[in-house]
Amino acid sequence: MDPAGDVAAGQTKAMACAACHGASGISASDMWPNLAGQKAGYLAKQLKAFRDGTRTDPVMSSMAKTLSDQDIDDLAAYYASL
Amino acid sequence: MDPAGDVAAGQTKAMACAACHGASGISASDMWPNLAGQKAGYLAKQLKAFRDGTRTDPVMSSMAKTLSDQDIDDLAAYYASL
Repeated sequence: MDPAGDVAAGQTKAMACAACHGASGISASDMWPNLAGQKAGYLAKQLKAFRDGTRTDPVMSSMAKTLSDQDIDDLAAYYASL
Repeated sequence: MDPAGDVAAGQTKAMACAACHGASGISASDMWPNLAGQKAGYLAKQLKAFRDGTRTDPVMSSMAKTLSDQDIDDLAAYYASL
Protein backbone atom coordinates (compact mmCIF):
# COMPACT_ATOMS: atom_id res chain seq x y z
CA MET A 1 0.00 0.00 0.00
CA ASP A 2 1.16 3.51 -0.78
CA PRO A 3 1.79 5.23 2.56
CA ALA A 4 0.38 8.49 1.13
CA GLY A 5 -2.95 6.90 0.18
CA ASP A 6 -6.09 6.80 2.28
CA VAL A 7 -8.08 3.59 1.77
CA ALA A 8 -11.43 5.01 2.94
CA ALA A 9 -11.09 8.11 0.78
CA GLY A 10 -10.12 5.89 -2.13
CA GLN A 11 -13.22 3.77 -1.71
CA THR A 12 -15.43 6.83 -2.15
CA LYS A 13 -13.45 8.06 -5.15
CA ALA A 14 -13.63 4.61 -6.75
CA MET A 15 -17.35 4.91 -7.54
CA ALA A 16 -16.50 6.01 -11.08
CA CYS A 17 -14.16 3.03 -11.56
CA ALA A 18 -16.64 0.35 -10.51
CA ALA A 19 -18.68 0.30 -13.71
CA CYS A 20 -15.78 -1.30 -15.55
CA HIS A 21 -13.45 -2.60 -12.85
CA GLY A 22 -16.16 -4.01 -10.57
CA ALA A 23 -17.38 -2.96 -7.15
CA SER A 24 -14.72 -5.18 -5.58
CA GLY A 25 -12.00 -4.67 -8.18
CA ILE A 26 -12.83 -7.70 -10.35
CA SER A 27 -13.55 -6.33 -13.80
CA ALA A 28 -16.63 -6.98 -15.90
CA SER A 29 -14.76 -7.80 -19.11
CA ASP A 30 -11.88 -10.01 -20.14
CA MET A 31 -10.34 -6.96 -21.80
CA TRP A 32 -10.24 -4.84 -18.62
CA PRO A 33 -7.85 -5.53 -15.77
CA ASN A 34 -8.78 -6.68 -12.30
CA LEU A 35 -7.51 -4.12 -9.78
CA ALA A 36 -8.14 -5.97 -6.50
CA GLY A 37 -4.89 -6.65 -4.69
CA GLN A 38 -2.79 -4.98 -7.35
CA LYS A 39 0.39 -3.22 -6.18
CA ALA A 40 -0.37 0.36 -5.06
CA GLY A 41 2.81 1.76 -6.57
CA TYR A 42 2.01 0.21 -9.94
CA LEU A 43 -1.60 1.46 -9.87
CA ALA A 44 -0.48 5.00 -9.02
CA LYS A 45 2.18 4.93 -11.74
CA GLN A 46 -0.37 3.86 -14.37
CA LEU A 47 -3.01 6.41 -13.32
CA LYS A 48 -0.38 9.16 -13.56
CA ALA A 49 0.72 7.82 -16.96
CA PHE A 50 -2.88 7.96 -18.23
CA ARG A 51 -3.37 11.43 -16.77
CA ASP A 52 -0.10 12.75 -18.17
CA GLY A 53 -0.48 11.07 -21.56
CA THR A 54 2.50 8.70 -21.44
CA ARG A 55 0.04 5.78 -21.52
CA THR A 56 -3.10 6.15 -23.60
CA ASP A 57 -6.45 4.41 -23.64
CA PRO A 58 -9.79 5.55 -25.08
CA VAL A 59 -11.49 5.33 -21.69
CA MET A 60 -8.75 5.75 -19.11
CA SER A 61 -7.11 8.78 -20.65
CA SER A 62 -10.20 10.88 -19.98
CA MET A 63 -11.10 9.18 -16.68
CA ALA A 64 -7.69 10.05 -15.24
CA LYS A 65 -7.48 13.59 -16.59
CA THR A 66 -8.98 15.33 -13.57
CA LEU A 67 -7.33 13.25 -10.83
CA SER A 68 -5.01 14.94 -8.34
CA ASP A 69 -1.94 13.16 -6.99
CA GLN A 70 -3.86 12.65 -3.74
CA ASP A 71 -6.85 11.14 -5.59
CA ILE A 72 -4.46 8.75 -7.31
CA ASP A 73 -2.73 7.72 -4.09
CA ASP A 74 -6.11 7.15 -2.41
CA LEU A 75 -7.43 5.04 -5.31
CA ALA A 76 -4.21 3.02 -5.45
CA ALA A 77 -4.31 2.38 -1.70
CA TYR A 78 -7.95 1.33 -1.91
CA TYR A 79 -7.55 -1.19 -4.72
CA ALA A 80 -4.34 -2.58 -3.26
CA SER A 81 -6.23 -3.20 -0.01
CA LEU A 82 -8.91 -5.40 -1.62
CA MET B 1 -8.89 -17.41 -20.10
CA ASP B 2 -8.09 -16.92 -23.75
CA PRO B 3 -9.35 -20.00 -25.61
CA ALA B 4 -6.34 -19.81 -27.96
CA GLY B 5 -3.81 -19.97 -25.12
CA ASP B 6 -2.16 -23.09 -23.75
CA VAL B 7 -1.56 -22.90 -19.99
CA ALA B 8 1.25 -25.49 -19.89
CA ALA B 9 3.09 -23.89 -22.80
CA GLY B 10 2.65 -20.53 -21.15
CA GLN B 11 4.18 -21.78 -17.93
CA THR B 12 7.37 -22.73 -19.77
CA LYS B 13 7.50 -19.43 -21.64
CA ALA B 14 6.97 -17.50 -18.40
CA MET B 15 10.46 -18.27 -17.08
CA ALA B 16 11.68 -14.91 -18.37
CA CYS B 17 8.82 -13.09 -16.64
CA ALA B 18 9.35 -14.60 -13.19
CA ALA B 19 12.35 -12.47 -12.21
CA CYS B 20 10.12 -9.41 -11.94
CA HIS B 21 6.58 -10.76 -11.80
CA GLY B 22 7.30 -13.66 -9.43
CA ALA B 23 7.26 -17.41 -9.94
CA SER B 24 3.56 -17.44 -9.07
CA GLY B 25 2.62 -14.09 -10.63
CA ILE B 26 3.02 -11.97 -7.49
CA SER B 27 5.59 -9.33 -8.34
CA ALA B 28 8.74 -8.54 -6.42
CA SER B 29 8.26 -4.75 -6.40
CA ASP B 30 5.46 -2.34 -5.56
CA MET B 31 6.08 -0.74 -8.96
CA TRP B 32 5.51 -3.92 -10.99
CA PRO B 33 2.07 -5.46 -11.44
CA ASN B 34 0.92 -8.78 -10.07
CA LEU B 35 -0.18 -10.99 -12.98
CA ALA B 36 -1.75 -13.91 -11.11
CA GLY B 37 -5.44 -14.17 -11.89
CA GLN B 38 -5.41 -11.20 -14.24
CA LYS B 39 -7.82 -11.29 -17.20
CA ALA B 40 -6.27 -13.19 -20.14
CA GLY B 41 -7.69 -10.79 -22.72
CA TYR B 42 -6.21 -7.80 -20.91
CA LEU B 43 -2.80 -9.48 -20.52
CA ALA B 44 -2.70 -10.38 -24.23
CA LYS B 45 -3.76 -6.86 -25.23
CA GLN B 46 -0.99 -5.31 -23.13
CA LEU B 47 1.74 -7.69 -24.36
CA LYS B 48 0.74 -6.88 -27.95
CA ALA B 49 0.76 -3.17 -27.13
CA PHE B 50 4.30 -3.44 -25.70
CA ARG B 51 5.44 -5.51 -28.68
CA ASP B 52 3.85 -3.19 -31.22
CA GLY B 53 4.94 0.01 -29.47
CA THR B 54 1.53 1.44 -28.57
CA ARG B 55 2.44 1.03 -24.89
CA THR B 56 6.02 1.63 -23.87
CA ASP B 57 8.10 0.62 -20.86
CA PRO B 58 11.88 0.46 -20.46
CA VAL B 59 11.78 -3.25 -19.63
CA MET B 60 8.60 -4.58 -21.22
CA SER B 61 9.10 -3.02 -24.63
CA SER B 62 12.15 -5.17 -25.25
CA MET B 63 10.85 -8.24 -23.40
CA ALA B 64 7.80 -8.37 -25.65
CA LYS B 65 9.57 -7.62 -28.92
CA THR B 66 10.19 -11.24 -29.93
CA LEU B 67 6.88 -12.73 -28.80
CA SER B 68 4.59 -14.35 -31.35
CA ASP B 69 0.81 -14.09 -31.06
CA GLN B 70 0.81 -17.71 -29.85
CA ASP B 71 3.46 -16.95 -27.19
CA ILE B 72 1.30 -14.08 -26.00
CA ASP B 73 -1.88 -16.16 -25.86
CA ASP B 74 -0.04 -18.90 -23.94
CA LEU B 75 1.44 -16.45 -21.43
CA ALA B 76 -1.92 -14.76 -20.93
CA ALA B 77 -3.66 -18.10 -20.41
CA TYR B 78 -1.00 -19.16 -17.90
CA TYR B 79 -1.13 -16.05 -15.72
CA ALA B 80 -4.92 -15.91 -15.86
CA SER B 81 -4.98 -19.49 -14.56
CA LEU B 82 -2.97 -18.73 -11.42
